[in-house]
Amino acid sequence: MAIPAFSTLHQHLQAEHEGLRERTQSRELLVQGRFLKVVRDQVMLPNGKLSSREFVQHPGAVVIVPLLDDGRLLLERQYRHPVERVMIEFPAGKLDDGEPGLRCAQRELLEETGCVAREWAFAGTMHNCIGYSDEHIDIWFARGLDYHQQQLEEGELLDLVVATPQDMLQSMREGLLTDAKTITCMLWLQQLLDGSWQPDWQKDVQT
Amino acid sequence: MAIPAFSTLHQHLQAEHEGLRERTQSRELLVQGRFLKVVRDQVMLPNGKLSSREFVQHPGAVVIVPLLDDGRLLLERQYRHPVERVMIEFPAGKLDDGEPGLRCAQRELLEETGCVAREWAFAGTMHNCIGYSDEHIDIWFARGLDYHQQQLEEGELLDLVVATPQDMLQSMREGLLTDAKTITCMLWLQQLLDGSWQPDWQKDVQT
Repeated sequence: MAIPAFSTLHQHLQAEHEGLRERTQSRELLVQGRFLKVVRDQVMLPNGKLSSREFVQHPGAVVIVPLLDDGRLLLERQYRHPVERVMIEFPAGKLDDGEPGLRCAQRELLEETGCVAREWAFAGTMHNCIGYSDEHIDIWFARGLDYHQQQLEEGELLDLVVATPQDMLQSMREGLLTDAKTITCMLWLQQLLDGSWQPDWQKDVQT
Repeated sequence: MAIPAFSTLHQHLQAEHEGLRERTQSRELLVQGRFLKVVRDQVMLPNGKLSSREFVQHPGAVVIVPLLDDGRLLLERQYRHPVERVMIEFPAGKLDDGEPGLRCAQRELLEETGCVAREWAFAGTMHNCIGYSDEHIDIWFARGLDYHQQQLEEGELLDLVVATPQDMLQSMREGLLTDAKTITCMLWLQQLLDGSWQPDWQKDVQT
């Protein structure tokens, strides 16, 4: 049997979403940990039936793609306890309460790598865990880097790593680079390098 | 001040990781929900101090990149309650207890899209939420699709969508496609299309 005709992405983007939407009836706190908050919502499905959804409430985060003047990228390697391995990733961090994304990006880049950037450009937002978290991650590109001094938090331990885009792609194919936010940033980087994404660079203003 | 010399990705990959590793001292169950399980570990940092880590324990998942014969991709649009929006994503699903990745990919592709693939290729694994989940997602490519019949679970509601790779990249740049697992798959797709990744296609065997 042949594949039937499905709607295209453009038709989708103009389409009515009401037939898919769920409506929250009530919310309960499942757990408030030291770091993680988990809630359970009762929702009404489009067909009128009730179901429940459990997810992590997250303040949101930023990830930074630090471009060195020679075309290489600045990355971190850091032990990540949940996956029990040292991961290669772009610098990233959680938004403080009410903190604008760019300020968070400036702060995290300085704290974790010791760098200040002369220019910043916003790429887009990703959602990394839509099944059970409301987390969004804003993607910022930084260039014109100047090195000051890392300001790691107590117990925060990470190494800085430098790599070419080709090196990173090769490492991804070899299964050595598996962090989805970092790989998502790499697709944005490719769009920058091939000219299909033209970022709106803005001068750094310490906010 | 100039950027100091950091180690490169290749040096990293050969490097000693012991200086970054945390050691689990004990684990407690924070919450066992209907879907989500959250634990808190006491860990010893490399400097000998104690800290705690909270994270979701997840069985792992697969995502499938279904290649149509005309070069387009088969996607889903689905309401995702945690982010309160309809998302465009590749078909994906959680591993059943003890289920091999390929069997899960075959099952999810059939259930969610109604398709059976003649050939499969494993790309790699991603970690989508390393800050607070042990989830890994195996990436499978599928081609030679034949349409049978969707077998959605009770209350599962999704539309099928077809798009070209260019259409997807454009949608990403416009902020309409934000799912990190799907964007991660797109970078693998680009590597396939430009020949830098040569998948090991295997014939479908219903396992």
